[in-house]
Amino acid sequence: MKQYILGVDIGGTNIKIGIFDSESIELIDKIEFKTPKRDQDQSIFLNLKSEIDQLIKNHKLVYEDVIGLGVAVPCPVKNGYVFSCPNLVWTNMDIVKELQKSFPSNIKISVSNDASLAALGENESLDMPYKNAVLITLGTGVGGGVIINGNIHEGSMGYGGEIGHIRVFDENEITCGCGSKGCLEQICGTHGILEYTQKLAKNSKTSIDMNRLSVKSVFDAAKDGDNLANKVIDRVAKYLAISASILAMIVDPEVFIIGGGVSRAGSFLIDKIEKHYKSEARFSSGHIPFMLAKTGNDAGIIGAAYLVSQQIKKSEKTDAW
Amino acid sequence: MKQYILGVDIGGTNIKIGIFDSESIELIDKIEFKTPKRDQDQSIFLNLKSEIDQLIKNHKLVYEDVIGLGVAVPCPVKNGYVFSCPNLVWTNMDIVKELQKSFPSNIKISVSNDASLAALGENESLDMPYKNAVLITLGTGVGGGVIINGNIHEGSMGYGGEIGHIRVFDENEITCGCGSKGCLEQICGTHGILEYTQKLAKNSKTSIDMNRLSVKSVFDAAKDGDNLANKVIDRVAKYLAISASILAMIVDPEVFIIGGGVSRAGSFLIDKIEKHYKSEARFSSGHIPFMLAKTGNDAGIIGAAYLVSQQIKKSEKTDAW
Repeated sequence: MKQYILGVDIGGTNIKIGIFDSESIELIDKIEFKTPKRDQDQSIFLNLKSEIDQLIKNHKLVYEDVIGLGVAVPCPVKNGYVFSCPNLVWTNMDIVKELQKSFPSNIKISVSNDASLAALGENESLDMPYKNAVLITLGTGVGGGVIINGNIHEGSMGYGGEIGHIRVFDENEITCGCGSKGCLEQICGTHGILEYTQKLAKNSKTSIDMNRLSVKSVFDAAKDGDNLANKVIDRVAKYLAISASILAMIVDPEVFIIGGGVSRAGSFLIDKIEKHYKSEARFSSGHIPFMLAKTGNDAGIIGAAYLVSQQIKKSEKTDAW
Repeated sequence: MKQYILGVDIGGTNIKIGIFDSESIELIDKIEFKTPKRDQDQSIFLNLKSEIDQLIKNHKLVYEDVIGLGVAVPCPVKNGYVFSCPNLVWTNMDIVKELQKSFPSNIKISVSNDASLAALGENESLDMPYKNAVLITLGTGVGGGVIINGNIHEGSMGYGGEIGHIRVFDENEITCGCGSKGCLEQICGTHGILEYTQKLAKNSKTSIDMNRLSVKSVFDAAKDGDNLANKVIDRVAKYLAISASILAMIVDPEVFIIGGGVSRAGSFLIDKIEKHYKSEARFSSGHIPFMLAKTGNDAGIIGAAYLVSQQIKKSEKTDAW
C-alpha cells in the first residue's frame, strides 16, 4: 500500500501544502492559500486542517494513507516548540502538540524552522547528500540553515543557523529589525540592497530606473555592466563571503548553498561570492564550493516532508517517537 | 579487573601523558617531557611509546590493562587525519594509523584537536554535561571547540571550532598568523593584548611597568582600576562578546566556557565579557551563560581520555571501531 507524507510551509503571507510519496519524497500535488490574519493562534490550525481534508479527498485518499506531517514555520523552533514568532503572533506554543489535536495519532508530526528545512530539503534532494552543509537564503530577510551529520542543527533555543543576524560589520547608526546592529541581513536583505543603491545613486550615474527600483533591476543592471549596480552587488557578495568564512571556521561545511528569491540572480551572484570568498577564507577552507539552491519556492514543503520522513525512519529504529 | 585509559597532549613545547581510570576518567598520574624538535614525523611517536612504556611500568601495569589511548594535537584533525600541523612539521599524516603501529591492537586510539578536546573534557567533567557547548581558549593564540549533541564537531576538514580565526573586525593593515585579516586572535591573543597596551601607553598614563609588560600585568592593573589597562581588557571582552553573539546565531550553545592561560583572570574577565555580551546578543540569546574552564593545564589529556572512552562505548554498541 502506497503511503503519503504532507509537507506544510506556514509563511507570514501564504501557507503551502504539498502531498508527497513517503518513499521517494516526490511532490505529487500542492496547494497554496492566504495565511489567516486574525486569531492566528487557532485559525491557522483550523484552516490547515480543512485544506488538508480537502487535499487528501481530492486525491481519493483517507488519513490512514498518510504517515507523516512536516511543518515549516518562519521562526526559531526547538523540538517543535516556538518561544516567539513575530510574523505570526505565536508565543510559547508547542506546535506539534497543537497540531496533533487535529490529526489522527497515526500521523507523525514534525516542525522546524523554514530556512533550516530548506537546508535539509536542498541537501536531501541531492544524489549524494552532504554530511555538513550550510544554506543561506536571500530574500526580504536573510535566513539560513545548518546541517550537521545530516540533521538540522536547531541549537539550544532554536537559533541554530540564524545566519542573517551574525554581526559582520562594525556598528553604525542603523538598527536591524532584530534590535541589534551590524547584521548580515542589513547589507544582504532586500531593504539593505535597495537602500545602498539609493545612497550611491545620489552621487553617481546609473542605468537603473530609480522610479522602478527593485533588487532584480539592480542585478539586471549589474549584468549589463552598470558600475553602480556592480558596486552594490559586490558589497552583497563580499559580506556573504565574509559570513561564509566565519561559518567555515565554526561549522566547516562541505558546501554553501545559496537560496531565496535573490538567488535567482544565478551564477552571476555565485561567481561574485566565490571571488570574494577566495580572499576571505582562512587556512585551507577556500575550496568549499558555493551552489545555487534548486528547490525554489517549494523548499519549505520539501524540507518539511524530508524532516518527518527522517524522524519516522529514526523512530522505527529506536521504537520511540 | 580495573582498566585504564591514557590521555596524551602533544604540544609544540611539551608532551603530557596522563593515566586515567577507564570508568571514572579520574586522573591517576601524569608525566610531562619536551617535544622532540628533530625528525618530528617519527621521533614524537618513538618518544611517546618509550615514555608510556615507563609510565605503565611505574604503575605495575601491562598493556593488557590499557583499553584506550586518546591524543590531543595542536592542529585541525579530521577522523584522526592531519592535513597540516605548522607547530609540528606534520603533513598529510594519519595519526591514528601511525600510533597503532607502536601499540597492541587491543588499545583503541582516538585523536582530535587540542582545543576541541579541551571543550569535550570541560563539558564531560561537569555533573550534567551540556548537549551543545562552546569553549574559547585564550592564550598565545585563541582556540576553540564546539560540542554538538555531546560530541566534538570536527567539520568536513577539521576546522570546526577554529574560533580564533573568525573575522570580527574590519580589515586593517596587520595580517594574522593565519594569513588573513580581522581575526579574533589578533585582538584577544597575547600578542594583540600586549601590542594594543603598548600603542595606548604611547599617549596615555598607566600604572603598568612597561618594561615588564605581560598579559598578567595588564589584568592586574585593570583590577586595580588603571584606566588604560581597563580599556585594553574592555576591547578583549567586547570582541569575545561579539564572537559569542555570532556563535549564538550559528551553534546556539547552552554555555560558553572560557579557558586557556588568560582565563586565569577569572571572574573579572567573565563579568566584563558578560556585560558586553548582553548588548551584542541577538534576539533572546542574551541569557547564555559564560563560565570559567576548570581543568586548567590538564584540559588536553582529560579531553583525550574522554574522547577515547566515548568512542569505546559507541563501538561497544555498534560493534565497530
